[in-house]
Amino acid sequence: MEVFKGACIVGQSGGPTAVINASICGAVATARSHPAITRVFGAINGIEGILNDRLFDFAAEDEREIGLLTNTPSAALGSCRYKLKDSETDEKDYRRILEIFKKYDIRYFFYNGGNDSMDTCNKVSKYMQKAGYACRIIGIPKTLDNDLAATDHCPGYGSAAKYIATSVCEVSLDSKAYKTGSVIIFEIMGRNAGWLAAAAALANVAGEGPDLVYLPERPFSIDAFVEDVKSVYERKGNCIVAVSEGVRDADGRFISEYGSSLANSKDAFGHSQMGGLASTLVSFVKEATGYKTRGIELSLLQRCAAHSASKTDVVEAYMAGAAAVANAVAGASDRMVAFKRAPGDVYKCDTVLVPLSDVANAESVVPDKWINERGNNVTQDFIDYALPLIAGEPDRVYENGLPRFARLKKTPVKE
Amino acid sequence: MEVFKGACIVGQSGGPTAVINASICGAVATARSHPAITRVFGAINGIEGILNDRLFDFAAEDEREIGLLTNTPSAALGSCRYKLKDSETDEKDYRRILEIFKKYDIRYFFYNGGNDSMDTCNKVSKYMQKAGYACRIIGIPKTLDNDLAATDHCPGYGSAAKYIATSVCEVSLDSKAYKTGSVIIFEIMGRNAGWLAAAAALANVAGEGPDLVYLPERPFSIDAFVEDVKSVYERKGNCIVAVSEGVRDADGRFISEYGSSLANSKDAFGHSQMGGLASTLVSFVKEATGYKTRGIELSLLQRCAAHSASKTDVVEAYMAGAAAVANAVAGASDRMVAFKRAPGDVYKCDTVLVPLSDVANAESVVPDKWINERGNNVTQDFIDYALPLIAGEPDRVYENGLPRFARLKKTPVKE
Repeated sequence: MEVFKGACIVGQSGGPTAVINASICGAVATARSHPAITRVFGAINGIEGILNDRLFDFAAEDEREIGLLTNTPSAALGSCRYKLKDSETDEKDYRRILEIFKKYDIRYFFYNGGNDSMDTCNKVSKYMQKAGYACRIIGIPKTLDNDLAATDHCPGYGSAAKYIATSVCEVSLDSKAYKTGSVIIFEIMGRNAGWLAAAAALANVAGEGPDLVYLPERPFSIDAFVEDVKSVYERKGNCIVAVSEGVRDADGRFISEYGSSLANSKDAFGHSQMGGLASTLVSFVKEATGYKTRGIELSLLQRCAAHSASKTDVVEAYMAGAAAVANAVAGASDRMVAFKRAPGDVYKCDTVLVPLSDVANAESVVPDKWINERGNNVTQDFIDYALPLIAGEPDRVYENGLPRFARLKKTPVKE
Repeated sequence: MEVFKGACIVGQSGGPTAVINASICGAVATARSHPAITRVFGAINGIEGILNDRLFDFAAEDEREIGLLTNTPSAALGSCRYKLKDSETDEKDYRRILEIFKKYDIRYFFYNGGNDSMDTCNKVSKYMQKAGYACRIIGIPKTLDNDLAATDHCPGYGSAAKYIATSVCEVSLDSKAYKTGSVIIFEIMGRNAGWLAAAAALANVAGEGPDLVYLPERPFSIDAFVEDVKSVYERKGNCIVAVSEGVRDADGRFISEYGSSLANSKDAFGHSQMGGLASTLVSFVKEATGYKTRGIELSLLQRCAAHSASKTDVVEAYMAGAAAVANAVAGASDRMVAFKRAPGDVYKCDTVLVPLSDVANAESVVPDKWINERGNNVTQDFIDYALPLIAGEPDRVYENGLPRFARLKKTPVKE
C-alpha cells in the first residue's frame, strides 16, 4: 500500500472547553510520531489562520508544553467563529485555502470544534474533492453543550458537568449552614440543549444537589416555577434550582427577556438591560414569596474550569484527537470522530467515524423521556448516562499553588 | 499538677469557609484523645445551639466522617449570626449558657469564627469569670475575608484566594481564545477589606491574571476606572479587572449603589434593584468604550470551593483547632489562636495565643503600602505575603466523580 505523505494542519474553532487542548495534544502527538505526516502545523485562530497564512510549527514547541495541553483550558491555538460561504456562491475563501494547502503540501486537515466547525470541515472537504486536490479531512468533536449529533457525548461536556455538579454541591451545602433557609438559583449555559443544567442534578448523587432543574427542551412557566419553589421550600426550608439560560415560555419567548420588558429596567444610561435569567427569576421568587433568594450565574467559569476537569473527559478528548490522525493516515476522510458507548453496566467508550454531513448543523437535545412529567427535573436515566462522564481526577501540574498551563511559542512557519 | 477535667463544646459561627470544618476536625481529634476532656459535644448552630440545648455527641460519629471534615465546606455543625447583648444590660442569655455548662459539666468551650464570634467568646469568658464558674474558653479563628486583627492571616483565606486566583487565571486564558478582545470584570467578596480581590493578582504569577485590581481601602472613581480600562485595552486588546464588592467613592457611597439610583433601574415589580457591582461597572465601560464587556460575580462559589482548597490552609486550619484544645488543657483561657509567620524567605507559620479582647470587633485591612500609587493594583509585597497561603493540594476523597463530604449524624445528647 502506498503511503499518503504530506504535512498536516490542526485547528480549533468555536467556544473553548476545559479539554479542547487535550484533543490537540492527542492529534499532535500521534501526527508527530507517524511517518506519513511530514510536518505538523497549528492554525492560529482556526480557519482564519489558514486564510491569513498564520501557521506555526509544532516542531519548534517544547515537548513538556505540548504535554501540558492535556490540562490547559481555553483554545491554545486560538479559536474563531468564521463561517465559510457556500462555495457555489463565493469560491474566494476556498481558493485561498487550496492555495495555502498547496503552498505547504498540506494533505491532512484536522479541525477541532462543534457543529459549525464540522460544517466548515464538510465544505472544505467537498471543495477539495471537486478541485481534485488529494487531502484527508477529519473533524475532532468538542462542545461544552454536548449538542453534537451522531455521538454518544462530546469531549468538553464531562468536565463542565463535573464543575457544575461540584459547585452546586458545595453551594448547596453552604446554603444550609444557617437555620434560616434560602432559595439559590443557578443560571447555567445552554441556549437550546439543557445538557449542562441537567448536569447539576448529578450533585444529588453526593446527597447535595438541586431540588428543581429546568431545561430549554420544555416550555417554562413562571407561575409553575414559583409554585414549585414554594412547594419545595415549605417542605425543606430551602430550595436549590438549576436552570438553563435558554428556557423559553410557551410562546417561545426567552424568560431572560422578561426582566427588561416587564421591568422597565434600564441601566445608568437608559439602555434596556438583559439582567440575566437568574436575576429575573430571583425577582419573581422574592415578589411571590419574600424568601431570601440569590442568583448565581456560572458564566465563563463553567467553560474553562480545567482545575476541576474529569479524567474520563481528558482521556477521551485526547483519544478523539489521536483517533482522527490514526484514521486519516489509514485512509479515512470526510468524517468526524464520534463516541460510541458499549452496552452494559460498565462504562466503556470507543471512537467511531461518522459522515461530516450527519453532524454539520444538526443538534442533539436531552431526550424528552429523560425529563420528568412536570418538567422540573431529570430522570435516573439521565444520571446513569452522565455520571460516568465526570469520573476520575486527571494528573494536574501545579506551580506556586496554581495550575501550570501550557505556553506555546507559536513561532510562525517559514516557507 | 491537678488535671482540670470536664466536657467540651465546639461550635461554629459566622459565614462558613472551605476549611472551617478542618478546624473542628483538629479540635475534636485533639479533645477526644486527651484524658482531661471527658466528652466532646458539638453545638448545633453555634451559641444558639447552647442557648437551645441542642448539642450532639462526637462519640456517636463515625471516625471516617470526622476525618472527612478536613475537606468539607460549609459549617458542618451549623452556624449562626447571634449577637449576645452586654451582660450588664441583659444577663438572660448568659445565665442560660451557665445553666447548660453546669448541666453537662462543660469546662472547655471552643468557638470557631470571625471577630463577632471572638466578641461572643470574650463576653462569655468574662461572665464565667464573674460568676466564678471555672471554664476555659479559646477562640479558633476563621474568616474568608482575612480581616481578623492580631494574626498574620486567617484560616479560610488561603483556600478562597486559591479558588479566586485559579478561576481568574482560567477565565483570563479563555478570554484570549478569540482575536476580538473583551473586558471581564470579576466582582469579589470584601466589604471593607480587599484581601480577597487582591488575591486575584496571584494569577499573574501564572502569567494570566488581572490587569487592574481595586480594593475598598482606596476611594474608587468611575472616571479613573474607565480611563484605566481604556488604557489597558488599547495596549493589550483586552482587559481583566478584579474589584471588591465594597468599593466606595470619595464620599463613601458604594459604587454598587450607582446602578439603582443613577439608573432608574427597577425590577419586574417596580423595586429598585441593587444590580450588583459588576453589572454597574459593565454598564459604565460599555457606555464609555463600546468594548465587549462581561461581569462575573464569584458569589458564594468563592466561599465554599473545597474542591480547590489550599493544602497550606487545610493544614493550618486543622492546626488552629488542635492548638486551641492543647493550650486550653495546658491552662490557657480567654485567648484566640493566632498565626505568627516566621521571618525569612521560607514560609513557616506557628500558632500563638492572643487576648480575645485584641480581636473582638477589630478589623485588619490591606496595608496602604501594598497598594500601588494609582490604587489600581497591589504590589509585590502583597504577592509575597499571599502566595505561600495558596500552596499545595490536599488529599481529596472522591466518589462517583464528586467530592465526598463528611456526613455527621448529630444525634442529640441525652442527659
